[in-house]
Order: sequence, then C-alpha cells, then structure tokens
Amino acid sequence: MKLTRFLHDSVKYTGLITDNTIREIKGDIFRNWTYTGEVFTVDEVKFLAPIEPNQIIGIGANYVSKKEELPSVLPEIPVFFFKPTSSVIGPDENIVIPEGIDKVKFESELAVVIGKEAKNIAESEVFDYVYGYTIGNDVTAPQFFHHDGHWTIGKSFDTFTPLGPVIETEFDPSVVSVEAVVNGIEKQNSSTDLMIISIGKMISYLSNVMTLKPGDVILTGSPVGAELVGEGDTIECEIKGIGVLRNRFVTQEMAVCTNK
Amino acid sequence: MKLTRFLHDSVKYTGLITDNTIREIKGDIFRNWTYTGEVFTVDEVKFLAPIEPNQIIGIGANYVSKKEELPSVLPEIPVFFFKPTSSVIGPDENIVIPEGIDKVKFESELAVVIGKEAKNIAESEVFDYVYGYTIGNDVTAPQFFHHDGHWTIGKSFDTFTPLGPVIETEFDPSVVSVEAVVNGIEKQNSSTDLMIISIGKMISYLSNVMTLKPGDVILTGSPVGAELVGEGDTIECEIKGIGVLRNRFVTQEMAVCTNK
Repeated sequence: MKLTRFLHDSVKYTGLITDNTIREIKGDIFRNWTYTGEVFTVDEVKFLAPIEPNQIIGIGANYVSKKEELPSVLPEIPVFFFKPTSSVIGPDENIVIPEGIDKVKFESELAVVIGKEAKNIAESEVFDYVYGYTIGNDVTAPQFFHHDGHWTIGKSFDTFTPLGPVIETEFDPSVVSVEAVVNGIEKQNSSTDLMIISIGKMISYLSNVMTLKPGDVILTGSPVGAELVGEGDTIECEIKGIGVLRNRFVTQEMAVCTNK
Repeated sequence: MKLTRFLHDSVKYTGLITDNTIREIKGDIFRNWTYTGEVFTVDEVKFLAPIEPNQIIGIGANYVSKKEELPSVLPEIPVFFFKPTSSVIGPDENIVIPEGIDKVKFESELAVVIGKEAKNIAESEVFDYVYGYTIGNDVTAPQFFHHDGHWTIGKSFDTFTPLGPVIETEFDPSVVSVEAVVNGIEKQNSSTDLMIISIGKMISYLSNVMTLKPGDVILTGSPVGAELVGEGDTIECEIKGIGVLRNRFVTQEMAVCTNK
C-alpha cells in the first residue's frame, strides 16, 4: 500500500492512495489504524512529506558506478551521519539555498522507514523491522563541511531533506533504479545492487549500536552523479514503484516571496 | 524551579522538586501545566532523565584550559554533531561499554534545553528561547570514530547520553563550574566562561541553520580533563545549582545481569 500525508483546507490528513483516490486513515500507522470513511481525490490536496521522522540517519559514499568496483572487504566503520528532522519538506516544496552561497548538491536516495523497535538485529531479520520505503533527497551544502570531516552543518539547513511522495510498504529494494533528473536531464541512475553496504548490513550494523525506533528514516546513500545546482533548477528524484519526488531550488530572497 | 521525571510503582511521572518533596505536574512543560495535587518524597521514586529530547546536538572541543588561551578569532564553522535520542539514560543508570572495547570516554557538560521554536535568533535574544539547563555526559567510544573525522557511531551507542538529575529553569549559565569526579577523584573542573563558542553564539549560529524546537537539547562542550574509563568506574558530573549526575560504567555482560 502507498501511505501519504496531505493538506486539505489547511487540515493535515494521513491516507492510503490508489490511482487518483486517497482514503483517509486514523491511528498509529505502524500498529493499528482504521479507515475513517473520508475520501479525497489527488487534485484537491497538497501532498506533505509522508512521515514526520523520529530521526534521520544517512550513510556516506555508498554506491560504486559498476559491479566490478564493489569492494571485496567492507569498511569496518561505515560513515553514518544524522540530519535534523527540522530539515524535512514534502513534494513540490522549495529547497532554500542558504545565504552566502550559490549552489547546493542534490542526492537522490532510497529511504527506509523503520516500523518496529530494533536492537541487535541479524542481517537476515532486518526486513521484519522495515515498515516501508520512500524517496529522500539528501541535499547538502559542502561549503559548510568542516575541514576535519564533520558534515553536520552542511547537511542540516531547513528544507535540506525532501521526502516523498509516498511510503510504499510492499516493495522489494534489492534491485531497483535510483534516479535523479535535473531540468529534464538525467544525472543519476543506478541500481540498488551497486550499494557498497547493503540495506540488510546497514540496518543490522546500526541496530547493534543503537536502538532503532518506529519512524526512524534511513537514507541509504546516493548513486554516482550528484552535482551542484542553483536557483531555479528543478530536481526529480524517481524510484519506480514509489514515485517521483520533485522540488525546486530557490534563494532565500525568492523563498520569502513564494513560500507559504 | 527544578523539573524532574521519575518512576513510582512502575508509572512515569513529571514533577517539580523542592528539597525532599516532589509535586506532580501534568501538561506541556513548555507552555501550560498544572499541579495534579499528588506529592512524593525523593526516597520513594526512581529518577529518570528529566526530558525525552526531541533531538540532541553537541559541539566539539569547546573549552580552553585558561582564559588567555581563548582565541581572538572564532572558528568559521563550529564542529557540531548529533546524538540519537535512543542514547539517553537517567541518573544512576549504567553506561554500557560496547562489546569489543574496554574503555570509553566521559565528558561532563552543561546541557541547554530549548523551550520555544527558534529560527534566525540574534545572540542577544537567545536566552528567550531557553527553557532551562541540565547536566549531560557526552559518553564517547573514540575507537568507533571514522578515520575521516566522522564521530557518529562513536557517540551513538545506547546509554551514551546520561542526562539529569533535573532541569533548572532559573539558572545563570555564564560563569558556573562544570565538574567531573571519577571514583572520588576530580577530573574536570572548568568555568563556562572558558567556552570558545559561548552559549549565545552557539544557539544563534544553530538557529541560523536549522529551526530549533522545544525539547531540543544542546550539549555545550566539555572542559579539559576528559579521560578513558572502564568497567566498575563511577562518574559524577556536577554543576552547582543543578545537581550531580551519577552513573556507573559496566560491560555488556554485567549490564545483562544488573540492568532492568
């Protein structure tokens, strides 16, 4: 099923979407929800990020460009990082380029949504703890990376984590293409089997460090091809079976004029 | 006032503490709460971390050892990092040393609790957005730092962020001693005026990057003197006016036997 959050007449709703129809649900999406009976069509709503994450965890440099480049020995300590939940926006919202710089980097990524508390999970059991999958754009301002390797500030600006358009709960992530198209031109297009650290290994490793919670979102890394983009550029991050996550890059001045 | 969270007969409560008496409160601690009329004494409760943080943000290497060492030019990009909320424990709970290593590092810190949504706040206005102060121990396993400077894993293990014992809402953080005592021996004792980036500058900077939210906890850095400690060691982090945050370091095997 495809889970969505959306606005209608300034009220926030959660629903399941089939073609053009959205059926509202109420309750805990991870455990116990029911249909309310309310039905909407897609053209009368404004879509929001499909989840307000509990936490956002990312992994750095996780794709090779072709299978032959996959390392035989995996890194002992993968590069993980956190992004603040305040950086989340939804489909069609503007990504705001911070003051003082002209360009930021996009990174189209498959995002995993954790559905059950997970601690010390074996690689083979990981998928029992996954609720579903969405698309994430891990926007980054490398100009704000610390020279000692700390990425925090460069990844933490408001609007830097578009998520959506939906969470697909029936989805096989093992061999799917993660794509990015900028102003109509393809920039990223790699299959998830080019990940260096697989989703199973990644979540198992993390769960051996920290207790993962329902609503934690894990950005699984971005294919080769991420680039710097600027004001007016439009990005479409696409994963077949989930959808297209479209956002436009604007400057702060433009954001003041055009954003709600 | 001193805010506390505690367990009594396995039920979680929030309350205000005066000497030996705790008066239960209900509601939103940041905006609108009332006394319930229930009263407890300190010896009949088990104290919890005084807050379940929305997010935890830390700053690296933020103290000099004496005033003359304070830099005249501040770093352009401070080293900030996130810790997962799953790493929080309360007073007197055990800090669990991860499997495969013998020692971890303690760091006694003044922790700021944000009380109001904060975006683009001037340094002079920062304290209008602070709810109160507690003590944090930013426990770290440097063995899990990535060689490229990423600290995430080394700071993310469960139990690695003791907080407490209370949140003090009437508190002047400008010149107070942040102390750490290990097995009765003083290891850290520096005044907050030895911070390189002051609390005002730190929160103003962060709020210009991201929207800070009520319940965000900012660990403001640790004085010189942090050391590696091991199984059986006891740490007391103390800030006069807030209290003493005491925890013991145990191995995973010991944790299985003694923790709930």
